[in-house]
Amino acid sequence: MSDPITEVTQVVRAFADCWNRHDMHAFGELFDPNAEFVNVVGLWWKGREEIRKAHELTHATLFKHSRLTLSDVAVRFPADGIAISRVRWILEGHVSPEGAPLPARKGILLNLLSRGPAGWSIIDSQNTDVIEGQLSRPQ
Amino acid sequence: MSDPITEVTQVVRAFADCWNRHDMHAFGELFDPNAEFVNVVGLWWKGREEIRKAHELTHATLFKHSRLTLSDVAVRFPADGIAISRVRWILEGHVSPEGAPLPARKGILLNLLSRGPAGWSIIDSQNTDVIEGQLSRPQ
Repeated sequence: MSDPITEVTQVVRAFADCWNRHDMHAFGELFDPNAEFVNVVGLWWKGREEIRKAHELTHATLFKHSRLTLSDVAVRFPADGIAISRVRWILEGHVSPEGAPLPARKGILLNLLSRGPAGWSIIDSQNTDVIEGQLSRPQ
Repeated sequence: MSDPITEVTQVVRAFADCWNRHDMHAFGELFDPNAEFVNVVGLWWKGREEIRKAHELTHATLFKHSRLTLSDVAVRFPADGIAISRVRWILEGHVSPEGAPLPARKGILLNLLSRGPAGWSIIDSQNTDVIEGQLSRPQ
């Protein structure tokens, strides 16, 4: 038997494992059917199918050979069966829309998870790029 | 008696009201003492006091005369006494670190709230700028 922190951490780590295999079917299965997701440029996807299709598109293009590395998986439980997880990430190997290699990017991903009969699933995600040396967005 | 959606919406709207009065004491009181907050450039504040002090700093400088306008307050309840709220925002009247006026910015703010004996408080926030016309971060 595993403890809730380990169980939640496994789902968050599976996010990166599916990303790095570019397996968007398995990626989508990490999410609740009614999950929502806001990505780093504020695209707001509603439902597992929108989340999956958006990632299928980027993993056929910008992120086709990218690698996502996680560190510092933090987990809190605001209520029984609900988890808040934040993780720092580094993305490497991604390209511009024109196919040019881009430097590594860093960010912080928030995942909210709910425990159901089949285990923990992600019910909400929001992602934010880290821009170092700034208090707010440079414009 | 008000319903939970109205109660949560009032707290989210108070976030903007306190911002626009630049009243960071009242702003901090919206948060649980153990709340966490990730801002648009990935600064990760832990606890009400860090959240308050960070906003005191920006409201003495970059955001001193800024105005935050919310629209589309969405609320979901993944468990009894827990709310997920997302809202689109526009920020106007902010300046660069050198004091130069900047164009309006848009973003999406996620707030997680928990209901306690004194009502709903924010236990976690993450903010992301909207960058239009992009699938992912332009670099």
